[in-house]
Amino acid sequence: MQHLFDPGYFEEPFSTLVLEYPEADVYPFNQFRMEWGPIFHRGRLDGSARVLIIGQDPAQHETIVRRILVGEAGRRAQGFLAKLGITTSYVFINTYLYSVWGSVKAATRKSPLLVGHRNQWIDAIMDGGKVEAVVTLGTAAAEAWGFWKTTPGGMASTVASAAITHPTQPESSSKNDKTKKALATKKMLANWNSGLQTLSAAIAHPDTIIPLKLYGEAWAEGDRVPMPERDFPAGLPAWMHEQDGWAARRGSDDLAKRRNITINVPKGIIP
Amino acid sequence: MQHLFDPGYFEEPFSTLVLEYPEADVYPFNQFRMEWGPIFHRGRLDGSARVLIIGQDPAQHETIVRRILVGEAGRRAQGFLAKLGITTSYVFINTYLYSVWGSVKAATRKSPLLVGHRNQWIDAIMDGGKVEAVVTLGTAAAEAWGFWKTTPGGMASTVASAAITHPTQPESSSKNDKTKKALATKKMLANWNSGLQTLSAAIAHPDTIIPLKLYGEAWAEGDRVPMPERDFPAGLPAWMHEQDGWAARRGSDDLAKRRNITINVPKGIIP
Repeated sequence: MQHLFDPGYFEEPFSTLVLEYPEADVYPFNQFRMEWGPIFHRGRLDGSARVLIIGQDPAQHETIVRRILVGEAGRRAQGFLAKLGITTSYVFINTYLYSVWGSVKAATRKSPLLVGHRNQWIDAIMDGGKVEAVVTLGTAAAEAWGFWKTTPGGMASTVASAAITHPTQPESSSKNDKTKKALATKKMLANWNSGLQTLSAAIAHPDTIIPLKLYGEAWAEGDRVPMPERDFPAGLPAWMHEQDGWAARRGSDDLAKRRNITINVPKGIIP
Repeated sequence: MQHLFDPGYFEEPFSTLVLEYPEADVYPFNQFRMEWGPIFHRGRLDGSARVLIIGQDPAQHETIVRRILVGEAGRRAQGFLAKLGITTSYVFINTYLYSVWGSVKAATRKSPLLVGHRNQWIDAIMDGGKVEAVVTLGTAAAEAWGFWKTTPGGMASTVASAAITHPTQPESSSKNDKTKKALATKKMLANWNSGLQTLSAAIAHPDTIIPLKLYGEAWAEGDRVPMPERDFPAGLPAWMHEQDGWAARRGSDDLAKRRNITINVPKGIIP
């Protein structure tokens, strides 16, 4: 059986962008989990991407897989792309290369070195000229896109964009309150429907031509789409892209948790 | 600061070898930790390797890094290469793509599909024509090399080879008995000295020309050499290649341990 994989960073300009990346002088240890290293992208870097999605920051599953948006947020974003007929021609980058620890100060968010390196990534992706739509997930990503739009490349670009709610905002805003979560989900899906309506007309070259089917008021079957194996490095087991919740930060206090990632193979994998 | 990295599997024949690899019909779940996926190599796949080292099977650090021989065994093997003047022009593969669980049955070890896929890797590495020496670590690796030597390519090859004791054999054979471990280390280093003497004459193009300095009767300073950053995928933090013991299999029973890998960032990394 063939297992497609992501060949990674072997071509310019990406091979240089991952060779020299901002470190603790740009991303301070008191705002980012610098100790786990930067995580750069997921998806096509070969110039074939039609949609660029900008997320926020990597979490524990991303840290193990070394690709971004591979957990529940990724599955929901993948579903959003699928509704636009985009199944392979996409690329994800994040606002931040490192996982956020606590909150990010305004001075860091606006740091020219942080913004400048990210703008180099956006330039590199946009330079191919094939991107037809940009999606930002959450407020930090929307701001990141805004910063790029003030650069010469950004000002010259006429690409369509939509700022949509971050895919796990319903969970983070509702703190285990089911009623609140259902309301936040409903509100988010309405917001995502606006995004779909903005972008569907802009995407002239989808991977598959399908009629636009909007979200309902809650998640429906097919709204959450698994990440394809080809987005992952070679040799990673199927459960890493098919399942979620297999990595957790565990420890008796905040520092112990910060130092830890505990992986458990999901039940049913070992016969 | 530049961070060199291993670009991975983007060129033939390696990109096909990692696309289609033997699975559970070849490597049974009752002899291998199939659930963690295959781990293929460490080092140069660009035809520049002068030494091929064959190890045994990947353990937990290898599973996270997705490169082989990155823990203590790797550090010792790296030291062996350094004594031969080889600092970058090497490639490691393993006898087994997956981590051994319990022991490997003879029928599995000799399985034509298992041996055949490994022989394709050896062919691919030897085809460049630059390899001047082959080192096997432990008995399974020596057998693997012997199998390749019965193939047309192996029979035609005149490359020098040395079968040396597996780098962590002193630990695995002594079970925390310090006297036994010291004796086993002494014996292993004498065996490694024989290997060095066999191979040093065969290596016509070392990375650095240095006089051959044999091992003493115990590990000395400089005998264990850190893995270079350039052997690791892009973005991995420095402690993953500079340190050992940061990944463990934890659980209340054998199955729980098998399902688990627990990573803890070493102390002193987070300021």
